[in-house]
Amino acid sequence: MKVYYLPSNNESGLNIETIDRSVMEKFNSDDYRYMHLALDDARSAKGRTTPNPAVGAVVVVKNRIVGRGATAEWGGPHAEKCALKEAGARARGATMYVTLEPCPHFGKTPPCTDAIIAAGIKRVVVAVRDPNPLVAGKGISQLRRHGIVVSTGLLRNEAAAVNEDFFWAITRQRAYITLKLALTLDGRIADSTGASKWITAPALRRIVHDLRRTHAAVAVGSGTLAADDPRLTVRCGRKANPARIVFSSVEAVPPQSYFYQHAWETRSIAVIRQKTERRITTDTASGIEFWYTGSDDPALSMAAFTEIAFSQNITSVLVEGGQKIASVLLEAGLVNRIYLFYGNRILGNGTDGILTTSGFPVANCITLRERETRLAGDDFYITGIPVFPAR
Amino acid sequence: MKVYYLPSNNESGLNIETIDRSVMEKFNSDDYRYMHLALDDARSAKGRTTPNPAVGAVVVVKNRIVGRGATAEWGGPHAEKCALKEAGARARGATMYVTLEPCPHFGKTPPCTDAIIAAGIKRVVVAVRDPNPLVAGKGISQLRRHGIVVSTGLLRNEAAAVNEDFFWAITRQRAYITLKLALTLDGRIADSTGASKWITAPALRRIVHDLRRTHAAVAVGSGTLAADDPRLTVRCGRKANPARIVFSSVEAVPPQSYFYQHAWETRSIAVIRQKTERRITTDTASGIEFWYTGSDDPALSMAAFTEIAFSQNITSVLVEGGQKIASVLLEAGLVNRIYLFYGNRILGNGTDGILTTSGFPVANCITLRERETRLAGDDFYITGIPVFPAR
Repeated sequence: MKVYYLPSNNESGLNIETIDRSVMEKFNSDDYRYMHLALDDARSAKGRTTPNPAVGAVVVVKNRIVGRGATAEWGGPHAEKCALKEAGARARGATMYVTLEPCPHFGKTPPCTDAIIAAGIKRVVVAVRDPNPLVAGKGISQLRRHGIVVSTGLLRNEAAAVNEDFFWAITRQRAYITLKLALTLDGRIADSTGASKWITAPALRRIVHDLRRTHAAVAVGSGTLAADDPRLTVRCGRKANPARIVFSSVEAVPPQSYFYQHAWETRSIAVIRQKTERRITTDTASGIEFWYTGSDDPALSMAAFTEIAFSQNITSVLVEGGQKIASVLLEAGLVNRIYLFYGNRILGNGTDGILTTSGFPVANCITLRERETRLAGDDFYITGIPVFPAR
Repeated sequence: MKVYYLPSNNESGLNIETIDRSVMEKFNSDDYRYMHLALDDARSAKGRTTPNPAVGAVVVVKNRIVGRGATAEWGGPHAEKCALKEAGARARGATMYVTLEPCPHFGKTPPCTDAIIAAGIKRVVVAVRDPNPLVAGKGISQLRRHGIVVSTGLLRNEAAAVNEDFFWAITRQRAYITLKLALTLDGRIADSTGASKWITAPALRRIVHDLRRTHAAVAVGSGTLAADDPRLTVRCGRKANPARIVFSSVEAVPPQSYFYQHAWETRSIAVIRQKTERRITTDTASGIEFWYTGSDDPALSMAAFTEIAFSQNITSVLVEGGQKIASVLLEAGLVNRIYLFYGNRILGNGTDGILTTSGFPVANCITLRERETRLAGDDFYITGIPVFPAR
């Protein structure tokens, strides 16, 4: 009858006020229009930029767009530099709309603030400050020191939503966890024989692929790996697949599994819940990384995993079940966002999607905030930020 | 490992084509407007007319409404007579819009067709034919025999939907069963301690009261009666409460229960699943009727119940659980419409809303057709007609 709830209450979501308390200035309708375009670019880059945030930038001179850019893959140029490159000499005296505060530090690439200053940009409109401790207002103040007019807060909430996972991870130094379950109307994820194909209709399954695309990694438990042999690939317009993760208590991955056989395709990780020291090894035969969490306790091991993942540049993980993994994550309060996909089916019996060891009382259970319900074909899904019971 | 499915596949819903094959005539926008008003009246009468269908009627002369009416409580006048009474002498030469074919037979009241003929109505527009074998086209032909122009089929589907339960019951000679469950997002109806107050928010609970209002009876299992001691009353604008039903395997109702104590308020019935002869007795002390179904088999007993209920003028029953009753009804294929109310809660453990003895396979399970999803405050519900697996 263990009950965990590791993080403190209501910390699963992101409170934008804790990141950016700047007062929103006055903007006109053109400002809104250009920032919306920059947000479109940021959203389209989502998923390929990890572990960097997805950013969009638009350069405008006299109400004419002269450059647009979005964050490239890790190691490639940031959005600001892409937009400046397109603008070329026309950037001199221009306004730049950027969805996230430009970075003032050397990472894999030189500082964006240097490039903005060098290009002769006159005004920069920033949607939201970057909570990354390496940035956190330093980018804005550096631009201002060079005489650039900086306005902040335009479409701040929309911009924060694009990088909700990154913001949460960078400020907590832990990977952001999204839990997704495909349930029947009576809450099952498989029938009495263990079959789960297909609980949801194709319209919902396409949304799953989009979720995979926007996460740095996709994870399942060893039970699901053994039962379903899932591919965990993105089958809709994306070059690289997210990293693949399997949670296990034994340090072995079935050699005949898709996970093992295709480990060469993408980064593949077996997270081992064992009471050994926390360490990382790589199996040279398969290329699979083994992450030892240092604990055989399900909740503590999972908490350790979120720390290791962040340190290994995996900032967001989409966990797709099964019952055990989903239940441990919820019991431990380690879920930042939940997606419940409901297929148009009643099974009457089978495997419950969620089955924690003790359960929560009705009066003090998990609820979802900022909930959205969406219809997709014959099915529907809900998503929200779990609020864990008060302790 | 018993599997039932008593009715044959897809019979849980109503196929309007089997009731009314008449071709829809041409109508103008005024016709639509008046019939919509008549439908409004029919809907507002829903619930108080049982075991009669809910009907609305509008009398129009030269584009002016001279009379409107809806079905009164059982034994009171039908919609046509109410509208004619209001119209008085102005009914001569008028057009009547009526949502259901007028009755040509003596019931608790004299035939409506006689009243229409006597009032001098010139044209009658009927939305849908009455599938009641005592009517079934006879009303329309009698009006025509007296020189009245009768048009049919205007807003036929809308009119059929108002009396979906009545049409189904009268053509099958069995009560129409609506199953309603209030579930958590993970499919539970109670937590590990058995508590279920409150899984859904007030906005959804108001809809439950509306459902009770529109059914002839409200039913629960003896387990729910013992655990929750529900009142099963309508707590929103209705004079009379629906009949109350409890399903039990023993011929006793807890004397301290609200059900027993308040049996004087409304018709109260204990349905006894026992291998005795099918019979009905009344407990003189409490006033509770005891219906013996004649079988101790859960599914057969429930099927017998639907027949007894119809014969006892209970044409529609809202079953509100708990798990056992819901599961038997679904396993037996005896549910005509299902309402699943989802509260914004995850319990992780507790009582599953549905738990049948064997369960259905994913590839051949219960699905819902004509499904609607509605948001209500923080919660949502879905309703649909269950399609039972092929055998």
